[in-house]
Amino acid sequence: MSQKVIPVILLGLGNVGSTLLRQIIDTQATVARRKMLHLVPIGLADISGVLFDPEGLSENTLQAVLHAAANKRLLDTVTQTRTLDDLETLIPARAIVADVTASTETRSRLQTVLAAGGGVVLANKNPLIGSWQAVQQLFGNPMLRYECAVGAGLPVIDTLHYLLDTGDQVHQIEGCMSGTLGYLCAELERGIPYSQIIAQAREQGYTEPDPRDDLSGHDVARKALILARTAGWPLEMTDLAVEALYDESLVALSTEEFMAAADTLDAAYANRFRQARAGGHTLRYVAQVGPEGGTVKLRSVPQDSPLGTLRGPANYIALRTQRYADLPLVISGPGAGPEVTAAGVLGDMIKLAQQIV
Amino acid sequence: MSQKVIPVILLGLGNVGSTLLRQIIDTQATVARRKMLHLVPIGLADISGVLFDPEGLSENTLQAVLHAAANKRLLDTVTQTRTLDDLETLIPARAIVADVTASTETRSRLQTVLAAGGGVVLANKNPLIGSWQAVQQLFGNPMLRYECAVGAGLPVIDTLHYLLDTGDQVHQIEGCMSGTLGYLCAELERGIPYSQIIAQAREQGYTEPDPRDDLSGHDVARKALILARTAGWPLEMTDLAVEALYDESLVALSTEEFMAAADTLDAAYANRFRQARAGGHTLRYVAQVGPEGGTVKLRSVPQDSPLGTLRGPANYIALRTQRYADLPLVISGPGAGPEVTAAGVLGDMIKLAQQIV
Repeated sequence: MSQKVIPVILLGLGNVGSTLLRQIIDTQATVARRKMLHLVPIGLADISGVLFDPEGLSENTLQAVLHAAANKRLLDTVTQTRTLDDLETLIPARAIVADVTASTETRSRLQTVLAAGGGVVLANKNPLIGSWQAVQQLFGNPMLRYECAVGAGLPVIDTLHYLLDTGDQVHQIEGCMSGTLGYLCAELERGIPYSQIIAQAREQGYTEPDPRDDLSGHDVARKALILARTAGWPLEMTDLAVEALYDESLVALSTEEFMAAADTLDAAYANRFRQARAGGHTLRYVAQVGPEGGTVKLRSVPQDSPLGTLRGPANYIALRTQRYADLPLVISGPGAGPEVTAAGVLGDMIKLAQQIV
Repeated sequence: MSQKVIPVILLGLGNVGSTLLRQIIDTQATVARRKMLHLVPIGLADISGVLFDPEGLSENTLQAVLHAAANKRLLDTVTQTRTLDDLETLIPARAIVADVTASTETRSRLQTVLAAGGGVVLANKNPLIGSWQAVQQLFGNPMLRYECAVGAGLPVIDTLHYLLDTGDQVHQIEGCMSGTLGYLCAELERGIPYSQIIAQAREQGYTEPDPRDDLSGHDVARKALILARTAGWPLEMTDLAVEALYDESLVALSTEEFMAAADTLDAAYANRFRQARAGGHTLRYVAQVGPEGGTVKLRSVPQDSPLGTLRGPANYIALRTQRYADLPLVISGPGAGPEVTAAGVLGDMIKLAQQIV
């Protein structure tokens, strides 16, 4: 068999994007040997500009980009040859575009790529959120992959697709899908005060700059919605009841005001965990979704159950289906981090490349 | 996109083979819609004969085979048109052959299919056992898939391949890979005597006719060897130290003699579980393998660990890699049964069909 050459374009050069670019370069020999594929970066784009060469960006250019990314200067250090609008018209038909931005503006560009017969890989969840009507086509397109939208590189989406492809029917999806909130629960379980956990996690960069962006549960709800839609349920965000892990009275505060007021919640959360423990239980932030909708909330689970024994930041996703009815099919492990996320995107790119004729 | 038509041939029409044939027929609309694929059964073979039609076996023929299989009469009720040697010369180049036999004689036939550019799916583990030299080529062939060799339809092999494709390095694989022995451990943990568990499990068809075929650990060792070789370690069966779950003194007995003598082991196993429990532990039959070799044996694990909380027949496979170092990537769930095994084979067939140009 001869090598198949597939041009690839990366949108986004943050932590995940630059890690992905390095992985693409570092695995070229592996991918050639194992899959008879050669993925050739022809385009890189981020907020600061676009690099494009239809013959493949040179080794020098790619190394300069990686060096710049490591120094957080990104593309503004290298020659910018095109704008993003130019890029859209330049993408060849057999290319694969990976969206590793957090942008809400990429969906229509990606639809153009798909319409031209290309492949699209998303780590960005935004193109899959919004009304079902707006995104339905994307979920039905076999040339779109989005493994990293849930659990980073854990093979959750791929497994759901495999079950559905082989005629199984999904009944329920349940899991812990936030490393940050998993860590919060593990620390609360150890008796550490809520405000102290959040302050430390924020300091160490484990939360968003405003921890309420994690604590709101909105990101977990987005993952649950993506899983539900993948399972074939045409749900909207409003079909999910989401419990925030902070009090409604603290919504209007600035970030610093919230951090200062967080200790007003210490007693309440300590109490909830104490009560759970008294019954041999503990609390986990669990998303649960089925054909009619779902919940995203703090749930009481037996201490010796799989969710109860889950270690800090690990993710856990259980699929209950017609075939996996008594015991679910479970995938668990770390669900965040640039290396495993980038690997998930690269895995999707390889699978799409194999499908491109 | 137009439908891609891929001829498929099944070797073996036992429980898994006939379930697979039914799934192929039942999912034709699903696979067409989701994957733009049409899998057309052109050949069926078992010990009693071969059916072959290069244009696709008729609906009537397929239904007759399914009906015969359900009544355990198999192909001898329908017209046999060819022998297995004929079949080999008749397989078209773009076909996919699924080996769902337990035969040790299929490897060279399958190599012929691969050499002609076809795809091969194995549920049969035998072609992957034997010396590394004899099977090395198979493990390196991207047109061979064997998801069901370990954990039935659980996506273990696919996940290992994805990790390796994206440049990860596997450090260790650990897990419980036998539903039968998982059940045995769960029952011993409950205090049921060894001989009673085995007699009941045998009666209900959960064990091989001679339970020592399960208790020897040989089947688990074969799975561990396949995982190790998939991970890139050129191991031989002799690199695995295997503990049988019965005494060496009982090897020479007939099946009935063994069943009658099994109660001589009751005290010893009850004692081992009692000792483990005293230390907050329990025992699980665990395969553990790394680049240099491995063990397959009864291991003491904390009661509140993932292996300790594993429910009866569930399988559990943990992959520790360069990227999943602190917390492993874990896949668990039921690892046996015709429906999930057939679905794993069908999933492999679909993935191969997507790769065939």
